[in-house]
Amino acid sequence: MPRIEPRLLKGFRDYLPEVMIPRVKMLRKVSAVFERFGFEPLDTPSLEYADILMGKLGPEAEKLFYRFKDAGDRDIALRYELTVSLARVIAQYGTNLPRPFKRYQMGPVWRAEAPAVERGRFREFWQCDVDIVGTNSLLADAECLAVDHSVMASIGVKTHQIRFNNRKLFRGLQEKLAVTHDALMASVMRCVDKLDKIGREGVEIELSKLEGLAGNARATVMQFLDLAKLEGTSDARIGSMAAFLSESTAGQAGCTELREVLVEARRMGVPDKHLFVDPTIVRGLDYYTGTVFETTLADAPTFGSVMSGGRYDGLVGLFSGKDEPAVGISVGIDRLLTVLEATNLLQKSKASAAVLVTIFDESCTEYSLRAASELRRAGVNTEIYLETQAKLAKQMKYAERKEIPLVVIAGPDEIKEGSVQLRVMTTGEQSRVKLDQLPQTALARFVEPDSTSQAGRTWDWAFKPEMFERVPEVGGLFLLRDETRNVKFAGSAKHGDLRNAIRRSVSETQARQIKTFDWYEIREDELSQALCEFIVARLKPDFNA
Amino acid sequence: MPRIEPRLLKGFRDYLPEVMIPRVKMLRKVSAVFERFGFEPLDTPSLEYADILMGKLGPEAEKLFYRFKDAGDRDIALRYELTVSLARVIAQYGTNLPRPFKRYQMGPVWRAEAPAVERGRFREFWQCDVDIVGTNSLLADAECLAVDHSVMASIGVKTHQIRFNNRKLFRGLQEKLAVTHDALMASVMRCVDKLDKIGREGVEIELSKLEGLAGNARATVMQFLDLAKLEGTSDARIGSMAAFLSESTAGQAGCTELREVLVEARRMGVPDKHLFVDPTIVRGLDYYTGTVFETTLADAPTFGSVMSGGRYDGLVGLFSGKDEPAVGISVGIDRLLTVLEATNLLQKSKASAAVLVTIFDESCTEYSLRAASELRRAGVNTEIYLETQAKLAKQMKYAERKEIPLVVIAGPDEIKEGSVQLRVMTTGEQSRVKLDQLPQTALARFVEPDSTSQAGRTWDWAFKPEMFERVPEVGGLFLLRDETRNVKFAGSAKHGDLRNAIRRSVSETQARQIKTFDWYEIREDELSQALCEFIVARLKPDFNA
Repeated sequence: MPRIEPRLLKGFRDYLPEVMIPRVKMLRKVSAVFERFGFEPLDTPSLEYADILMGKLGPEAEKLFYRFKDAGDRDIALRYELTVSLARVIAQYGTNLPRPFKRYQMGPVWRAEAPAVERGRFREFWQCDVDIVGTNSLLADAECLAVDHSVMASIGVKTHQIRFNNRKLFRGLQEKLAVTHDALMASVMRCVDKLDKIGREGVEIELSKLEGLAGNARATVMQFLDLAKLEGTSDARIGSMAAFLSESTAGQAGCTELREVLVEARRMGVPDKHLFVDPTIVRGLDYYTGTVFETTLADAPTFGSVMSGGRYDGLVGLFSGKDEPAVGISVGIDRLLTVLEATNLLQKSKASAAVLVTIFDESCTEYSLRAASELRRAGVNTEIYLETQAKLAKQMKYAERKEIPLVVIAGPDEIKEGSVQLRVMTTGEQSRVKLDQLPQTALARFVEPDSTSQAGRTWDWAFKPEMFERVPEVGGLFLLRDETRNVKFAGSAKHGDLRNAIRRSVSETQARQIKTFDWYEIREDELSQALCEFIVARLKPDFNA
Repeated sequence: MPRIEPRLLKGFRDYLPEVMIPRVKMLRKVSAVFERFGFEPLDTPSLEYADILMGKLGPEAEKLFYRFKDAGDRDIALRYELTVSLARVIAQYGTNLPRPFKRYQMGPVWRAEAPAVERGRFREFWQCDVDIVGTNSLLADAECLAVDHSVMASIGVKTHQIRFNNRKLFRGLQEKLAVTHDALMASVMRCVDKLDKIGREGVEIELSKLEGLAGNARATVMQFLDLAKLEGTSDARIGSMAAFLSESTAGQAGCTELREVLVEARRMGVPDKHLFVDPTIVRGLDYYTGTVFETTLADAPTFGSVMSGGRYDGLVGLFSGKDEPAVGISVGIDRLLTVLEATNLLQKSKASAAVLVTIFDESCTEYSLRAASELRRAGVNTEIYLETQAKLAKQMKYAERKEIPLVVIAGPDEIKEGSVQLRVMTTGEQSRVKLDQLPQTALARFVEPDSTSQAGRTWDWAFKPEMFERVPEVGGLFLLRDETRNVKFAGSAKHGDLRNAIRRSVSETQARQIKTFDWYEIREDELSQALCEFIVARLKPDFNA
């Protein structure tokens, strides 16, 4: 039989471990945030009837889809995105699903269009969507912004700009321009949409090419762009827009909605510095009816939006025939990974394991297996070298290559005294550790590098509200002290919650008295350690053995 | 435009939240176990060239695949399983990947064959595979058994029987039967494979129908089946097989390998009661070359195997042309869910959220949003009711329907005193809680029900080794006491590790002196609470404010 050449289809990719490890971590963080806000997971088939997936798209959309006949001659396709299937689910299960129906879905979608691999556009990629179906309430729109901020915070992004707009502003602009043809207005919006890419002058040139757009109308669009500039506050921008579109009911409605979404997002705890009302945001043309949002990173603006969405009140009712308002937001997980990599926020890793347990020789196998089991029981990801006759040098090389941070070695000498050698691969430092102390020692030697963590372990500041920002999102202990350095409050925080735990305590206790706070980054396992000390102290066990 | 009928393709399914919530949890647990053993995640495309995916399968395999031409007239298909793509990756990246290469992959596969929805066989379903490529070491085979046991333990299964065999035994049997035609031997194996379904008599009848199998050969097969019965110990069964196949080199090699895998699996900590050498296990016919394994649940044997695999030394070299030994195991995640549901081990859930924060009226929105933020910051999954004008009764009904366990209500009275009403939905119990105490109180009121947890919180036993089995796999504190009830050792354990923590301490300290142990189930958040008490006690902060 001739050998088959191993190869991939154009526009498809393998995710090798080095890329997949941070990707899996990110997907876990994103789904945790979705659940934190009470979104339920949903999954739908990858293959559906083509007429369902193509929804209200015209026949020209056909080339976008992987569409074919199955063995039963059914006209089927691979899903192009996740929202149409959500609309089908809403229609199919009707009132068996609660309203509002809040779901998240994470999974692959397929696009038959020409890929642009160099710009990260593949024919198969993942979408991670949250949507809220069945309510007109703008709290739902604001919640999407809150989810957006929490996703960014959870993966260590600090410079995100959540930019949002309301499509009713364009209806207001259309009235002001007295453009009666929707097609012309769509062209105008397409020009505005290019602002980030081609700049103000570029937009003006593009507008001048539009047949049917009078010179004074063009000037009005340029005036709109100038008022929309992200200079003053979001509130001021809404004010300018309200004045600019004062003649239009739609324009006024858009401004009122923008104001409400802004207020509610703030109340939900999204810091003002991340919220930008941006009247130039357009998003997809046919889809959105109200709020639209996208998210760029201030330190990587050229990558475009990493989280986008909006309100689309027409689509979900597609199959049910009933009007179902909906709003949602989608994380571009692969683009986000690319951006984090470009801005050095991505914690790369070649191995799941923190420890490689080597096998000295066949007679030492059992002992090494025991060491590996002990480590795993303590929650340490541990790989055992799977051959009993490999030279130690070869095993070390394996650990080096996979960048496994710790290596355990146990030969006859170590076994005799019930210990192992624990080697820190980066420094070459090696020490003898009792087997029963191994899990604890390994945990103490290896903290999973955390891109959101800072190096310092103890800080002491004069109290200023901004200093909260300097506490990384780790776990630990903290002390709040007054002027004379008396401890007013001591507390602990779970992993990721230290900053918030301190903030909560300050606001709840004697905020004005607190002058300094100290914090100690401390890992989950050491919390248990310290707790053990505590009960030993409390219960005074008799250790006279 | 005519309304499109919402419908699914035959053999496909939606995973609605109620099913998806436990499924997501199970997938997370399974991947955590895979990583605990140092397997790295890998992902490959769903669509590949048909010649790659069909590998060495003949043209009759065509009907198994979703296969079609893409717009570029390429002959492509959806993957049928994950192992062929692993073989492609191995050939394509060659020595850029370390050896042994240990990867896990979790994702959908598609099968065009007739589905059997009533028996849980769909055309699209997930596979969760671990494989170890590039080593002949039987430690790798044993590691698959250890992964199997850990997966079962992590999802709360207690009655799993990991049954394994070595295909070389069948080569030994073939020699003994003097069957020269491989096709006839394959038929014999197919009969043996049906033992679980049709019983001993059934197999005998099936064998009698095989043309070319002499009566004395049939008697030999029946003798083989009788020796294979799961009555005595696994060691005894290997002994019987070794005697029965004493004339065959292959048979002897199979027995030696079985013995080694059994020994190493025990050394890796798999309890003997879960390990069964079962010489009747066959698995796929063309694929496996050595160890084969499957996993049934003693209390649900009719569901078949939930975790299976084996050693397949011929397949991975398919594209590289190089011999690459490999062994792997696969979790049947959807079948496992079905079995857990049937045996009441599945913790069903309709909501991600533990708390619904209601909105009393528009003026109270801000306060409710704050309460929701506080809860989320403390790590509590919290849903805010997204409409400001809904009646409270409607909001309560929503919580009831989604089975959200806790509801927060805050009207003008509560706001005035900085508190909320916290309602426990199952009991109707309602109490006033200060806003700053809310997260803590909510956490104390709601422990996520854990199918592996027992009700009791304090136990006191006379020491017997078996009593470890009675400690559920939760987290907590424990005390080990001597005859006079003096505490000899006190310790704490992370969630899921209490049993092992006690076991480790007993074996490491004064095992003979310990007469009783007490343990207290304690949740992660309360660990932090207790720790806080500890540092307050240690650091003696001045609370004279």
